[in-house]
Amino acid sequence: MKIVSALTRIVAGAGVIVALAGLPPAEAQDNAAARAAREWRLSHEWQIIDEYYGFLRIPNVSRDLPNVRRNADYLLKMMEKRGIKSRLLEVSGAPPAVYGEILTPGATHTYVFYSHYDGQPLDPKEWATPPFEPVLRSARLDKGGQLVPFPAQGQRFDPDWRIYARSASDAKAAIFSMLTAVDALNAAGMKPRANIKFIFEGEEELESPNLGRILNANKELLKGDLWFICDGPEHPSGNQTINFGARGIQKMEVTVYGAKRQLHSGHYGNWAPNPALMLAQLLASMKDADGRVLVENFYDGVVALSDLEKKAIAATPDDDAALMQEMGLARTDGGGRKLGELINLPSLNIRGMASARIGEQAANVIPAAATAAIDLRLVKGVTNKGQVARVIEHIRKQGYFVVATEPDDKTRLAHPRIAKVVVSADGYNAVRTPMDLPVAQNVIATVSTVRRPVVLNPTSGGSSPWDMITDELGTNIISISTVNYDNNQHSSNENLRLQNLWNGLETHAALIMME
Amino acid sequence: MKIVSALTRIVAGAGVIVALAGLPPAEAQDNAAARAAREWRLSHEWQIIDEYYGFLRIPNVSRDLPNVRRNADYLLKMMEKRGIKSRLLEVSGAPPAVYGEILTPGATHTYVFYSHYDGQPLDPKEWATPPFEPVLRSARLDKGGQLVPFPAQGQRFDPDWRIYARSASDAKAAIFSMLTAVDALNAAGMKPRANIKFIFEGEEELESPNLGRILNANKELLKGDLWFICDGPEHPSGNQTINFGARGIQKMEVTVYGAKRQLHSGHYGNWAPNPALMLAQLLASMKDADGRVLVENFYDGVVALSDLEKKAIAATPDDDAALMQEMGLARTDGGGRKLGELINLPSLNIRGMASARIGEQAANVIPAAATAAIDLRLVKGVTNKGQVARVIEHIRKQGYFVVATEPDDKTRLAHPRIAKVVVSADGYNAVRTPMDLPVAQNVIATVSTVRRPVVLNPTSGGSSPWDMITDELGTNIISISTVNYDNNQHSSNENLRLQNLWNGLETHAALIMME
Repeated sequence: MKIVSALTRIVAGAGVIVALAGLPPAEAQDNAAARAAREWRLSHEWQIIDEYYGFLRIPNVSRDLPNVRRNADYLLKMMEKRGIKSRLLEVSGAPPAVYGEILTPGATHTYVFYSHYDGQPLDPKEWATPPFEPVLRSARLDKGGQLVPFPAQGQRFDPDWRIYARSASDAKAAIFSMLTAVDALNAAGMKPRANIKFIFEGEEELESPNLGRILNANKELLKGDLWFICDGPEHPSGNQTINFGARGIQKMEVTVYGAKRQLHSGHYGNWAPNPALMLAQLLASMKDADGRVLVENFYDGVVALSDLEKKAIAATPDDDAALMQEMGLARTDGGGRKLGELINLPSLNIRGMASARIGEQAANVIPAAATAAIDLRLVKGVTNKGQVARVIEHIRKQGYFVVATEPDDKTRLAHPRIAKVVVSADGYNAVRTPMDLPVAQNVIATVSTVRRPVVLNPTSGGSSPWDMITDELGTNIISISTVNYDNNQHSSNENLRLQNLWNGLETHAALIMME
Repeated sequence: MKIVSALTRIVAGAGVIVALAGLPPAEAQDNAAARAAREWRLSHEWQIIDEYYGFLRIPNVSRDLPNVRRNADYLLKMMEKRGIKSRLLEVSGAPPAVYGEILTPGATHTYVFYSHYDGQPLDPKEWATPPFEPVLRSARLDKGGQLVPFPAQGQRFDPDWRIYARSASDAKAAIFSMLTAVDALNAAGMKPRANIKFIFEGEEELESPNLGRILNANKELLKGDLWFICDGPEHPSGNQTINFGARGIQKMEVTVYGAKRQLHSGHYGNWAPNPALMLAQLLASMKDADGRVLVENFYDGVVALSDLEKKAIAATPDDDAALMQEMGLARTDGGGRKLGELINLPSLNIRGMASARIGEQAANVIPAAATAAIDLRLVKGVTNKGQVARVIEHIRKQGYFVVATEPDDKTRLAHPRIAKVVVSADGYNAVRTPMDLPVAQNVIATVSTVRRPVVLNPTSGGSSPWDMITDELGTNIISISTVNYDNNQHSSNENLRLQNLWNGLETHAALIMME
C-alpha cells in the first residue's frame, strides 16, 4: 500500500505518466518479487527453456481437441509441481479451462490471472521450421536470424535470441512465465499477500464461444478484485504495456441489389440500376472525406476520456509520422488527431467490398448485387446492438428497405431500393477500467517498480470480449502485455524474444505478490 | 427507286414506323427476290440444312487457327459453286478474310455484306450435345426441347425446330443464308442490280484485331455505298430488326490506395484512410441517385436524335414494364425515360468492384487498395479518348493524383490521394448512320417489303467496332439482324430457330437484289 500512496501523490501532481517517466527508465528492480524472479531465472535459464519446449511441443490448434486437452493436462501437472491447487473446469462440448489457486489465509484481495493455451490454425508449409518443434534463432527470421543449437546446461542464452514455435508468444508465453514466477517465488520463500487464481482458457482463438458458460458455472470461484488478462504484445516502443480496456466489435454485411441477374451493360446501362454504384453511394453517405462517421448519433453516449487517460495517451511514445512513412501514407483520417486518441472513438470500417469482378475476369455487365463487409469498433458508452441500430436507421434514411435475408421477387418488385443487412451473432461491447480506481493505481505502481517507462493504454485498438467477464462476474479487468510486438502471432513463424519472456516473468512475479 | 420514293412520302407523313405499322404485318411478300428465296427454300429444305451441317461441323473457335482456315476454304468452295468470284484476303499473323464478288456491268451502287465465320470459345462439358456435331431439337433445350432425328429427304422441317451447334446463330447463319440466297436467285435467273461484295472475317470474336489492316490493304476493293453488317439477333419481339448504329466502348479501371499493406482495423481504424470508402466516395461523385453521370461535360457533344430516330424508338415494341417485372426491378435509372431512349446516351457503368474480401473470407482489415472496373459506352458525338479525359479530370477534381502504374513509395508519400487509372487499349467509337440518308431509306423500304413490322433501331445497346470501317473506308453501315434473340450466342448450347434462318434467307435475297 506504500507504493500506491506514493503513486497517488504523483498522480495528483504532474500526471501519472510524466511522473513515471521522471523515474529512472529501464530495469528498475525496486520490487522484491521481480528481483527474486530475476535471480532465480539467471541460474535456471536452461531448465526454464527446456520446460517451455515441452509445453510448446504439444500441438494446440483450437479445433484439435485431443491435443488441446493434452495441453490442459500438461498445465495441471505443471501447477501441481508448484503446489498450486488445480483442476479442470469443464462444460460440455468445449475444451476444459485449467483452474489453479493459491489461497492466502486472511487475504482481503483476490486477483485472477487469465490467459489461453490454444493457438491459431496454421499451415506447416508456410513455416521455416515445424511449428510444434521449437527452435532458437539468433534474431528475427526475416532479418537474417540463424538457427542456434540448444546450449549446454550452464551456458547463457542471448536475450535477443528468439524461440520459434506456434504459441511461443500467443499466449503460452504468459502462462509459462506466470508459472515460472511461482517457481521463483517458491524458491525465495515468498508467499502471495492476496488470493491468487489462474484460469487458462482452451478456445480463445475461436473467440471464446464457451467462456461465458464456464464463468456462469463458476461465478463465485472466479470473482475477484481484478482479472489480469495476460495476453498480447507490448507497445512497439518495447515498453511494458498495461491496457485498461479493449474495444468491442460488431461485424455486419450490407448487400444492395440491382436486377435479378447480371445484365449486359450495353443493352441495359443507363436504365437498369447498378448496385455497385448504389453501394458506393450508400457507403459514401456514411462517412465524410476525413473519415468521420455521418451516421446519426453514431458518437452519442461515448464516455469521454478522463484527464488521466488523456495524459496517458499524450505520453505514449507513438510516432504517427514514422508510421505514416512506413505505411506509405501522406494523409490520415481524423482531422490531424493522433492514432492513440482516435482509437478511443467508435469506428465504422469497410473491411471488404465486392460486386461482380475486376481485372482480367471483369465482364461488361451491370452487376446483380454489391456487398460491403463492415466492422464497427465499439468504445465505452456505445453498444454493439445500439450501433447496428443506428447504421440500419441510416440505411433506411437513404431510401432502403432493409431485409435480413435474400429478397424474393415480391419484395424486389415492391421496393425500389433493398439492402440486406446481416449482423454477426458474435458481437460484444467495449470495456474500459478507469485508471484512477485504487486497484488500477495499485497495478500501475507495482508494474512501474519492475520496469519503466510504462505505456498506459486506456483502450487497446483491437477488440476482446472482456464484457463477457465484467458482465458475468462484475470484476474489473486490466491487461498485461509482455511479448514482443513483432512476434508474428496468428501467422507463420510465430516467435518469442527471450528478453520478453524474462521481462514477463518479473512483471508477473510482482503482480502475483501485489498487495 | 420506286419503293424508296413511296417510303419517303410515308416518312413525310406520320413517321416511318407508324406508317410501316399500318401496312399488313407479317410475311408480306411484296418482294420478288424474297418470294424466289422462299419458293426455292420450300423445295430444298433438306439440302439447305444438310449443307449447313457441313459448315457447322468445322470447328471455328477463333484461336484454333488451322480449323478457322478450314472454314475459310470451305467458304471459298461454297462461293465458287455459286459462281461468286472469291479469294482470301490475307494479312500476316491473322486468319484470312474470305472475299467474294458479283460484279454487275453498269451498276452505280456497290453493297458490301460483312459477317464473320469464327466462333466464341467454349467448354464442351457445358454443352448438352457436342458443339461441332449439329443436332435438331423440337424446341429450346431449357423449355423441354427434345432431339429430333434428321428428316428423310422430302419431309418437312418444322420451322420451330432449332439447330444446336457453335455458331449456328453467331454468325454462320448470316453467311449461310446469304450464300443460300444466291442459290435461290441463281435458280430464278435473277441477277443483282448493284455490285455485290461479301467479306467474311475470321476473328471477330477476338474483337477484330486485324480487320483494320485488312481494310487498309484493300481499301478500293471494299468500299461501297453501304456495308451491311449481317450479324446479331433480332429484337425480342421477333420482328425483323435493322440497326443503324452501334455504341462505342471504352473500358477503364480505377484503383485507389490506402496504406501499403492491409492493416488491423482495430489498431488503425479511424486513422489510416480506408481505400474502399475512398473508392465509394469517388464513384458516388460520378453519378447521381438517378444514374445521371455527374462528370463534367460528360454529355457534351452528343449528337441529338433526329425526329425520325425518335419516332423509331417510340414505335419499337419495347415493354419496359415487362422487363422490370422479369428482372425484379421496382425502379429504373434515367428519370422515367424508356430504355430505347437511354441507350442513345453515353453511359458510365461500374462493371466490377473489389476491395479485400467479403463473406466468410472477410478479415478485420483496412484494405490496402480498392478497384472499380468501368465501361464507358459511347454514342455519336463523344469519343472514347474524350470521355476518358473527362473521367480522369473528374477524378483529379476530387483531389486525386492520377497515375498509370502502381505508385512507388515516393509517390505515395507525396500525394494524399492517389488513383491509378488503367485505360484499355481496345476502345472504339460509336457509329450511327442517319435514317434519312437515301441509302438508309432504300434499305428500310426493301426490308419492309419482305417482313413487317420492322424494328428500326438508331443505335444498338451493345458495342461494335464499326468505326474501324467508317474511318478506313468512309462507308456507311447498317446492320441486319436475323437470328432468334434467345440463341445462347457466346454461351453453351448455341442454337438457331429454323424460321429465323428462313426469314434471313428472304431478307438477304431482297438486299442482294436491292437497287
